[in-house]
Amino acid sequence: MSAIAHLKSHYEKLDNFEHIFAITRWDEAACMPAGGAEARGEAHSELAVHIHRLATNPEVKAWLEQASLENVSDKDQAFVREAMRHYEAMVALPESLVSAKTKAGSRCEVAWRSQRKNNDWTGFVKNFKPVVELAREEAQIRAKGRQSPYDAMMALYEPGMTSQQVDSVFNDLKTWLPATIERVLEKQVSQNRSIPPLETTIPVFEQQKLSKALMQLLRFDFTRGRLDVSAHPFCGGVPDDVRLTTRYNENDFIPAMMGVIHETGHARYEQMLPNSLKRFPVGKARSMGIHESQSLFFEMQLARDSQFIPVLYRQVCEKLGCFLPEKYTESHFKQEVQKVERGFIRVDADEVTYPAHVILRYEIEKALINSEIEIEDIPELWDSKMQAYLGLSTKGNFKDGCMQDIHWTDGSFGYFPSYTLGAMYAAQFRAKMSQEFDLSNCIKSGNIELIETWLDRNIWQHGSVFETNDLVLKATGESLNAKFFKAHIEQRYLK
Amino acid sequence: MSAIAHLKSHYEKLDNFEHIFAITRWDEAACMPAGGAEARGEAHSELAVHIHRLATNPEVKAWLEQASLENVSDKDQAFVREAMRHYEAMVALPESLVSAKTKAGSRCEVAWRSQRKNNDWTGFVKNFKPVVELAREEAQIRAKGRQSPYDAMMALYEPGMTSQQVDSVFNDLKTWLPATIERVLEKQVSQNRSIPPLETTIPVFEQQKLSKALMQLLRFDFTRGRLDVSAHPFCGGVPDDVRLTTRYNENDFIPAMMGVIHETGHARYEQMLPNSLKRFPVGKARSMGIHESQSLFFEMQLARDSQFIPVLYRQVCEKLGCFLPEKYTESHFKQEVQKVERGFIRVDADEVTYPAHVILRYEIEKALINSEIEIEDIPELWDSKMQAYLGLSTKGNFKDGCMQDIHWTDGSFGYFPSYTLGAMYAAQFRAKMSQEFDLSNCIKSGNIELIETWLDRNIWQHGSVFETNDLVLKATGESLNAKFFKAHIEQRYLK
Repeated sequence: MSAIAHLKSHYEKLDNFEHIFAITRWDEAACMPAGGAEARGEAHSELAVHIHRLATNPEVKAWLEQASLENVSDKDQAFVREAMRHYEAMVALPESLVSAKTKAGSRCEVAWRSQRKNNDWTGFVKNFKPVVELAREEAQIRAKGRQSPYDAMMALYEPGMTSQQVDSVFNDLKTWLPATIERVLEKQVSQNRSIPPLETTIPVFEQQKLSKALMQLLRFDFTRGRLDVSAHPFCGGVPDDVRLTTRYNENDFIPAMMGVIHETGHARYEQMLPNSLKRFPVGKARSMGIHESQSLFFEMQLARDSQFIPVLYRQVCEKLGCFLPEKYTESHFKQEVQKVERGFIRVDADEVTYPAHVILRYEIEKALINSEIEIEDIPELWDSKMQAYLGLSTKGNFKDGCMQDIHWTDGSFGYFPSYTLGAMYAAQFRAKMSQEFDLSNCIKSGNIELIETWLDRNIWQHGSVFETNDLVLKATGESLNAKFFKAHIEQRYLK
Repeated sequence: MSAIAHLKSHYEKLDNFEHIFAITRWDEAACMPAGGAEARGEAHSELAVHIHRLATNPEVKAWLEQASLENVSDKDQAFVREAMRHYEAMVALPESLVSAKTKAGSRCEVAWRSQRKNNDWTGFVKNFKPVVELAREEAQIRAKGRQSPYDAMMALYEPGMTSQQVDSVFNDLKTWLPATIERVLEKQVSQNRSIPPLETTIPVFEQQKLSKALMQLLRFDFTRGRLDVSAHPFCGGVPDDVRLTTRYNENDFIPAMMGVIHETGHARYEQMLPNSLKRFPVGKARSMGIHESQSLFFEMQLARDSQFIPVLYRQVCEKLGCFLPEKYTESHFKQEVQKVERGFIRVDADEVTYPAHVILRYEIEKALINSEIEIEDIPELWDSKMQAYLGLSTKGNFKDGCMQDIHWTDGSFGYFPSYTLGAMYAAQFRAKMSQEFDLSNCIKSGNIELIETWLDRNIWQHGSVFETNDLVLKATGESLNAKFFKAHIEQRYLK
């Protein structure tokens, strides 16, 4: 057996355990009763250790070394490159650090749930300190002196991306964003866009019907996936069995509807990963930024587009019509879908203000992991950046400020940039599509076949065969560039 | 570390993987879309191999040998006895046989689904032959020349039980059963019990509400379990997270209602297994017969009791009242719940005719595994026994005859007796309860606390600490005896 063949069979085995883990993690969020948590926690930590041991088996290293000497095809070169990346990310940390990190993260996250509610920053800092210390240790180890600690963490989500590159696009956005937000808000006020609250109650069961109809419209494959409910919506499972979740609010159907469309974008990517490669690292999604570009393409570029809103509105009327007041017109619906507001909370933010939330977090976590600031500096920094980017004060308001996100509580530093990278990729993809086919007509018609073909040909079917920059270059003719996102926002909100 | 301590930590590890497996098996039946089956099948077979290797790790044998020499408490003696039983059952088969058996069983079962529909006995025999050959090989290996091959298979489900003992109670039943069925049917006819079909449609959603209310009444702990839907109802999951399923028929609410009550009996047993032992073999359910005694206690001894029927009827009216015709009285409901009929299908059988179905299968599978008959003999034997026990002909009707059950398709020979052993245990437990407290009043009131306390004290909290016969002896003062079941049937259907 060649080294490549050994590696393939190794990754198939690993994939079997990861499949199991993906399903029980979904179950934990979507099904598990509270009393099952303790036993599940133990079972999960056992499974995580088993997967880590399998992934870092010394034989893997030998196969990888041998494979890199073998004369292999281009496809197999990509296979080896991604296998190596996977192995190195897994083997970098000693088991003791993995375990210490998991424990500190879990303790901090569990306590945070109530500390956040109580605005208890002092209590939070106690549990957060070891999380940050361990993350810094992890980042040092991963950096190997070849890159900054923060870049080493970000590479877990955005392989190949450096903070220098992120700085460059984020700085571009930053100079433009505050004034743009101001202009958008002025325009919305001048158009008298004050939306009266939609006073109606729509049963969850009916909203579910709408969700499924929209997933169907967006060509989600229900023979290989399903939709359920969880407190924090996500897209989990495995490519042949993708598990989407959402949460419903009986007094406002729009967040769940948009959430489902967003997660459907993630799901389409997963369902369309290359069949022959999907069990290997080279066949997985390229990066979290590219993943987010798919969900944001579906949500922002497609669903919130003025030309798609009539399509959406028809579905809403068909499924929920009898719960809506007669005066609920298409223009009313459109105002809600395209509403822009300055707010404290990232997850509630619209696409115009969202980058401000991300850039703020990126700047703070980068400085924190690179040991340029300390935990105690965060609240003041947060407040000053909120003032600068969004004109809001979070002084003393930790729960709607630096304590609002789950990411830091378990040490997932380096993840935030992916959200805004995704938004920028999505805008860039859209711009390219417009040159290649009649995108406008496609959106208007509600038949997304041409969009789907483009995404499949340029993104989905490649998995991780190309490095991110090469993928984007091949798809759009240039590297990531903020101009497309800026143009998109100006076109939608300022024309 | 003592050998016992090593074993405990070993079984905790094993339990973690079995937890994961229990949840993904439930998911496979209750959630998984069809397209996920292939990947799941592979993941499950990988996990099964991993569990088998863990369970048969040579260190386990060494610890077991050492532990049996150590001076251990009574409780730990039971621990070692059950651990040994578990290890020996797992280690008996070579991995090649386990794998051959799984493959042959899976092929036969999948083909059976359509062959049964097509009444295709000849096609079925082709796949069934290797299943029987492998089962005979397995039975020979397990028997080790110390017991009959069939007894060795039955011991997987009924440890400590021999076919001699089963013969003795089943022969007792057999001499009594055909005439009893005849008398019950005559009595029902004389009472003019022809029940007009209930012509109504009750949405699944409403039936679910009734199911959950009944589970609540039977004190199912919803913080440690849930109810879902699957094609074949079962009780799965783990003690702290028990997963029940049922299937609904919009035109007949009674089967799902009774199915849920039955599975709730299984679930209560699982949820109440001894907390400090539940992760070890000694803390698991005692046997399949005892498990079935719990579900049948809830379904037959409690729910179909004339004194409990008013309680049930009130719940039915409260939850489903607006879907029921006005003429649907309590006596109508009672007739449906206590209806006795001769039929072809075991899973649809009432408690009076059920043992006939089981005894027939027991006699055939015992002869088959002990190589006293061949596969080709089954249809004729089946028909002659159906004639003798139930007065029905299955000549040429394989699909409602010897091809109706899933058990044989995957080689689960030795399981059938558990159903009727369970029914007999349940009647015996009931008789003892009646002596110890005012059972009748407890049933009438719908408050099952005293029943629950009795079951917990005598069955649930003991897990597998005692051998089955000792457990029954301690609980009821005598070994398994068919007289209680016979008296129960006569009392309910002939008085």
